[in-house]
Amino acid sequence: MTTMTAETTDGRLRRGETTRRTVLKRAVDIASIQGLEGLSIGKLAGDLEISKSGLFALFGAKEELQLATIRAARRIYADAVVAPAMAAPAGLERLWAMTEAWLVYSQTRVFPGGCFFAKATHDYAARPGKVRDSLAAANLEWMELVEKTVVEARELGHLAANTDARQLAFELNAFYEGANLISLLRDDDTSAYDLARRSVQTRLEALATSGSPRPWE
Amino acid sequence: MTTMTAETTDGRLRRGETTRRTVLKRAVDIASIQGLEGLSIGKLAGDLEISKSGLFALFGAKEELQLATIRAARRIYADAVVAPAMAAPAGLERLWAMTEAWLVYSQTRVFPGGCFFAKATHDYAARPGKVRDSLAAANLEWMELVEKTVVEARELGHLAANTDARQLAFELNAFYEGANLISLLRDDDTSAYDLARRSVQTRLEALATSGSPRPWE
Repeated sequence: MTTMTAETTDGRLRRGETTRRTVLKRAVDIASIQGLEGLSIGKLAGDLEISKSGLFALFGAKEELQLATIRAARRIYADAVVAPAMAAPAGLERLWAMTEAWLVYSQTRVFPGGCFFAKATHDYAARPGKVRDSLAAANLEWMELVEKTVVEARELGHLAANTDARQLAFELNAFYEGANLISLLRDDDTSAYDLARRSVQTRLEALATSGSPRPWE
Repeated sequence: MTTMTAETTDGRLRRGETTRRTVLKRAVDIASIQGLEGLSIGKLAGDLEISKSGLFALFGAKEELQLATIRAARRIYADAVVAPAMAAPAGLERLWAMTEAWLVYSQTRVFPGGCFFAKATHDYAARPGKVRDSLAAANLEWMELVEKTVVEARELGHLAANTDARQLAFELNAFYEGANLISLLRDDDTSAYDLARRSVQTRLEALATSGSPRPWE
């Protein structure tokens, strides 16, 4: 009896986890196009043919669903962008791998609406609340990672000793987001990614020390 | 009788125009925070104590209101950003005046939610329709103006003859938008604008010919 109950509970938990993943997979895609505001538990339930009460049980109110969607998007971003960058050796190789991973992540539409975070963050930047706080925290964590990657390159002697890490991180990220937006606005224009690549290369070339690796060549 | 009718019609047209301006002033502010999706004729009518039927008569459906709001935002942007840039002499002075005007436009919150276009364009970039087309056209016109301003500086000999105008325009605009977003996300952090100023200066210094004006000094 005890065993059966445990099995039943396990089964229910597993099914709950599967449903949760299915819902969040759909939610990140919708949010990348329509925005987090466009998420609706009722509409998701209809789309996925899941009971509305079941979804409420899994996510609670809309804001909880939005926050869970941001967490799911962070996991996807970590796999698509952060992991390939971290797999490269620290220094200019890693900075360039990060650049490539970001641009490919946007260009291949890992999220159908382009970068999930560019979209969601612009959407909520001026609207105080938990959603904005969650997106601001994700943005800060990302910018700190870019900055840390620049610092590593400087400490390895790949970049000039007077390289301002916060400044360069700001510039690289601005190029990434600039390319993402232009690519979404101008249909069939993939040249935005080439623009960003050249911009990053120009800045890295200007700061690279002689003899440091030049992975873009 | 003819004269009276003409006066009445004139008076009605004037009142209609005044109402229209009042509504659009409010609509651009709301849209810069909540997004164009958040505009509602019913809510605007309530906020401004104007009859809903009167607003429908002036704007028609929601999409018409959204398009009129974009046009109103373009006029405000033209006054805040384009006019001060065009008032400066062509060349590096104008490029720098454009940079200053853009950053001040964002920092002083001409629109309460920061740059109207950064917000609205991210919001609609992946959603086909007239609203997206209108925002894409505004973006293209702006980017062409930045590029033209770079070309002028090159033709005046202020920038190196091999300066890639499209590339530099992409970079300047990416710095502007990057500063706008960071400033919205990190409360009380005005240093984003200093980051952008330094980035623009670094790029212009790298491409400026000797003896050309250096308005940033």
